[in-house]
Amino acid sequence: MKNIKLTVQYNGKNYPGWQSQPGTLGIEGEIERAYFTLFSEKIKIHGSGRTDSGVHALGQVCNFHTERDLDPVRLPKALNCKLPKDVSVVDAEEVAPDFHSRYHAKGKCYRYLMYNSLYRNPVMSGISYQVKFNLDFEKMRSEMEKLKGRHDFSTFMSAKSSVKTTTREIYDIRLEQRENIIVLEIEGSGFLYNMVRIIVGTLVDIGRGRITDSMEEIIASKDRGKAGHTAPAWGLYLKEVYY
Amino acid sequence: MKNIKLTVQYNGKNYPGWQSQPGTLGIEGEIERAYFTLFSEKIKIHGSGRTDSGVHALGQVCNFHTERDLDPVRLPKALNCKLPKDVSVVDAEEVAPDFHSRYHAKGKCYRYLMYNSLYRNPVMSGISYQVKFNLDFEKMRSEMEKLKGRHDFSTFMSAKSSVKTTTREIYDIRLEQRENIIVLEIEGSGFLYNMVRIIVGTLVDIGRGRITDSMEEIIASKDRGKAGHTAPAWGLYLKEVYY
Repeated sequence: MKNIKLTVQYNGKNYPGWQSQPGTLGIEGEIERAYFTLFSEKIKIHGSGRTDSGVHALGQVCNFHTERDLDPVRLPKALNCKLPKDVSVVDAEEVAPDFHSRYHAKGKCYRYLMYNSLYRNPVMSGISYQVKFNLDFEKMRSEMEKLKGRHDFSTFMSAKSSVKTTTREIYDIRLEQRENIIVLEIEGSGFLYNMVRIIVGTLVDIGRGRITDSMEEIIASKDRGKAGHTAPAWGLYLKEVYY
Repeated sequence: MKNIKLTVQYNGKNYPGWQSQPGTLGIEGEIERAYFTLFSEKIKIHGSGRTDSGVHALGQVCNFHTERDLDPVRLPKALNCKLPKDVSVVDAEEVAPDFHSRYHAKGKCYRYLMYNSLYRNPVMSGISYQVKFNLDFEKMRSEMEKLKGRHDFSTFMSAKSSVKTTTREIYDIRLEQRENIIVLEIEGSGFLYNMVRIIVGTLVDIGRGRITDSMEEIIASKDRGKAGHTAPAWGLYLKEVYY
């Protein structure tokens, strides 16, 4: 029995998310199907976590067990031949039998891509969030610094969620801007449901002057209503999972 | 009679190119159609130059004359409502009556986007050229420097072309690389048919060691066979037109 870890990229546009839904395959289902097509073996893919419908990944991680004496080196190319063009396996390696991509994840890095212009960009649309407002990047940077560290992030959680604890640690958060392209990257121990998208929406609302509360106040309020809008799924990328 | 200059972005994927073809509207045709839908006036769009099928633009420039007393400020938004999602007018201004976007262009800047990986990237595919080889960027940079200046660039011209002179001036050429993304930008007085794509293909072939001739030799040969492959259209962006 081998335990294989895969690193996967995908464009989430045409999927219900990482997880399969009744009648529709998610990314995990596509990989299971591609594998079955190749080897006639049913595997169960365990992802590092779900991504929502429309969310992309540059480095989602998953693992599965197989009875086959598989050479992981050839696996990405073989799977990619059977996978739809919007899913790509970019790495495969054998890992310890007890490795689990979700339970052993120590943290994650998300990237959020924005395009800052009054007018849509036909190349960036669908893979970035078009922000039409002038943004005060200095203000956004100074407020976002306060997100770093260990906090109760319940302000930045969608109501749908039920979790044991809403405390998470943000290791780092970076905002880069060049021409009209804005890239925000955020690394943390873990993220609540919609947390990254609500943080981005809040920073945009701060940047355009719609929110004037300080980030300390917003965090301390534990009130979703104090945070900004939920930025759309199509700007979000799961960039990396740390182990 | 007003003369209006437009700056246009587009994703070239679904078009025969800038120019309309029998039975298929090019980008110019889409703009003419959108304008007619708005104002019931037939205009003739003059582009700064054609772009091939599949080539994108971040700053194509065109102009047209109108009988209407048009306020250019509102024009981009109005046109974008009628244009397909993969075309976007990002600027409009009134210019001198004799301004012509093609005859008055002093130069152009093209961007070429590559993704350097063995495996396809589902977000970047379609908008960049996937290069699977390890590249020697130092070598590429030192060879590409030699392209700068005034040269007979007939080595880098597709055979189909008939032009008066094959001498052009390259003002600047830059290669940036970050993670797997490679961006090449090239500014010049003008470009021969497929010249940017052949230059990119040649630099890639130099970077992977397939071409060992020096760039001086390649330029001096005036032999298309000495240059590299023609990089695909979908990595190419007309970034800016200079006046």
